[in-house]
Amino acid sequence: MNSTLPGYKDKPLFTPGPLTTSRTVKQAMLRDLGSRDSEFITVVRSIRERLLKIAGVEKGTHEAILLQGSGTYSVESIFSSTVPRSGKVLILVNGSYGERMIKICDVLNIPKVVLRNPENEVPNLESLREELAKDPEITHVAAVHCETTTGIINPIQLIGEIVKGHGRIYFVDAMSSFGAVPIDFEACGVDYLVSSANKCIEGVPGFGFIIARMDEFMKTERYARSLSLDLYAQWKGLESNGQFRFTPPTHSLLAFHQALIELEDEGGVAARAARYRKNHEVLVKGMRELGFKEYLKSDLQGYIITSFLYPDDSNFSFETFYNQLNDRGFVIYPGKLSQADCFRIGSIGRLSGYDFTALLLGIEKALKLMGVTLG
Amino acid sequence: MNSTLPGYKDKPLFTPGPLTTSRTVKQAMLRDLGSRDSEFITVVRSIRERLLKIAGVEKGTHEAILLQGSGTYSVESIFSSTVPRSGKVLILVNGSYGERMIKICDVLNIPKVVLRNPENEVPNLESLREELAKDPEITHVAAVHCETTTGIINPIQLIGEIVKGHGRIYFVDAMSSFGAVPIDFEACGVDYLVSSANKCIEGVPGFGFIIARMDEFMKTERYARSLSLDLYAQWKGLESNGQFRFTPPTHSLLAFHQALIELEDEGGVAARAARYRKNHEVLVKGMRELGFKEYLKSDLQGYIITSFLYPDDSNFSFETFYNQLNDRGFVIYPGKLSQADCFRIGSIGRLSGYDFTALLLGIEKALKLMGVTLG
Repeated sequence: MNSTLPGYKDKPLFTPGPLTTSRTVKQAMLRDLGSRDSEFITVVRSIRERLLKIAGVEKGTHEAILLQGSGTYSVESIFSSTVPRSGKVLILVNGSYGERMIKICDVLNIPKVVLRNPENEVPNLESLREELAKDPEITHVAAVHCETTTGIINPIQLIGEIVKGHGRIYFVDAMSSFGAVPIDFEACGVDYLVSSANKCIEGVPGFGFIIARMDEFMKTERYARSLSLDLYAQWKGLESNGQFRFTPPTHSLLAFHQALIELEDEGGVAARAARYRKNHEVLVKGMRELGFKEYLKSDLQGYIITSFLYPDDSNFSFETFYNQLNDRGFVIYPGKLSQADCFRIGSIGRLSGYDFTALLLGIEKALKLMGVTLG
Repeated sequence: MNSTLPGYKDKPLFTPGPLTTSRTVKQAMLRDLGSRDSEFITVVRSIRERLLKIAGVEKGTHEAILLQGSGTYSVESIFSSTVPRSGKVLILVNGSYGERMIKICDVLNIPKVVLRNPENEVPNLESLREELAKDPEITHVAAVHCETTTGIINPIQLIGEIVKGHGRIYFVDAMSSFGAVPIDFEACGVDYLVSSANKCIEGVPGFGFIIARMDEFMKTERYARSLSLDLYAQWKGLESNGQFRFTPPTHSLLAFHQALIELEDEGGVAARAARYRKNHEVLVKGMRELGFKEYLKSDLQGYIITSFLYPDDSNFSFETFYNQLNDRGFVIYPGKLSQADCFRIGSIGRLSGYDFTALLLGIEKALKLMGVTLG
């Protein structure tokens, strides 16, 4: 079904990333630039400026720092290089990406408090308030904006108001939301935000980025527990001569620069949000018509990725379903839930409503071939 | 001078990487594959097998582990996830990449012994022997094969014989050599070797890789001091379902797979070594004719990258020289030496003798314009 010929149309990716990117984003990688070349340095500077613009913050009060590796590396870098040895982190968990923060703190020996909620509920704000009031040792609070596990959108502004009300440092994992879900840095009181190249900006994987509020960040020199993930040193390097400390993924960065231009051409975050929301609406409407049910209540469900419950029919096998779709050129995503059998369908990447109407035809066909009947 | 049009010929990169890669390697990135897609998993498996083949080792006794990030991330992962809390590392240093290992151990709080030699000398084997004999606490020895700082080739086999003679674990940073300088794993006694995608295999940056001897590696579960750089968990992930634990740089991996095929098509390591050696010879012959002197003695100089001393003429300014060359489309590399004023010219990447004869014309012209006369 596939070909490695350049220009061949790949299967659309209904996943949380790597995503389907535009032809022109990929074509931007058909170059070899030296990592110390002035043209490349200009590209990096432009990327950092454009990220701040998307975030709605100013250079000086904030900085965008790019870090090689997957998004998880950037998440780890926040913990490992901005939390002091005397620090203690409160982690709000309602899915795998919150759980991953726990693992990071464990391996780094960072003291932590975990407030865990079911995967289909947002964090309990009252518990957060109580915990912060009773434990003055907590220095940082970490939350996930769009928990890709389910697609739930956590209320980062309400959380931030509590965190800031208690004078703590606030870290938001906006991996799957930044660029497509508006985030008001000021209102949310975000000190550190993390996202990655291959999410809603629609670049290819290779690096993540952190948007840091400088007031806090400037205090973190020498906090790092790793050389590679030393965020302060990374910023210093980028700031001093525009270069990365260690070899950057030059091609991914060229692609990302193009992706940022295309995001602006599309009309910025609002326009991208509108397209993704439309994708999501086409998907959910069609899936409901087929008889599927979403895992989350509608008011908690974001338009980034949607979890659907397995049909209540013994003929349904996710593996067969996945392969039936894959054979027809549609790549969906397995579930990651501990509490329910679900699969996931992403609405992000260079996809439009037509991709979803085609997907729905594929799903209908797969159900028919499996002999699955839905409510 | 440049254009972002796809297909435009970029300036050849006479650098230690990112390098000039082939058109076809870059074209392999014109695709978006899902990171859990069976086609992608097949590509990853093929990459890991081909790396073992290049290393001349067998799957089972050895494993190739791919790790997101720059090569330094892979170097750090060796220290942070294969050295136990009770470990102590002896580091052989004669350049910046040895110095970087010291920084890594310092930030990770790993006890270390440093044997430092001048940048134009190979490590002192007698000191190594003495140190290992007198300090039984040393568990690991780390050496750099081709020290990119100068281009010196360190005698990893002689070092390995001493290390293994004393029953210690041996780690070789072969970042700039693997794929173009033959390495006999058995004779060298290598336990862990590190290299990266954008070096002599001629891929694009985005990840590094580690070739591990399983006897030792299997003892390292839970040694990790980082989640992202946990080499054992990374291997487990790749081995269990062929997938990366965290988002892989799918496009870089597709490019690397193509680069491995092209390395085989060229005739493997021996043929690549011959091309790079030829590049180096054309360069050195021409530079000597122009009056330049190499920093290293010939018998220590490898064919990967060459350091040239600044001309002894006050009209010479490296910045002007670099820009004159850059304006004519040749990208060279600054020096990194603490002891002498040098610049560097790499022989690696998709370059042939003609690229070097052209570069030499550019250098001749730049000298003339600066009014520099060489001995």
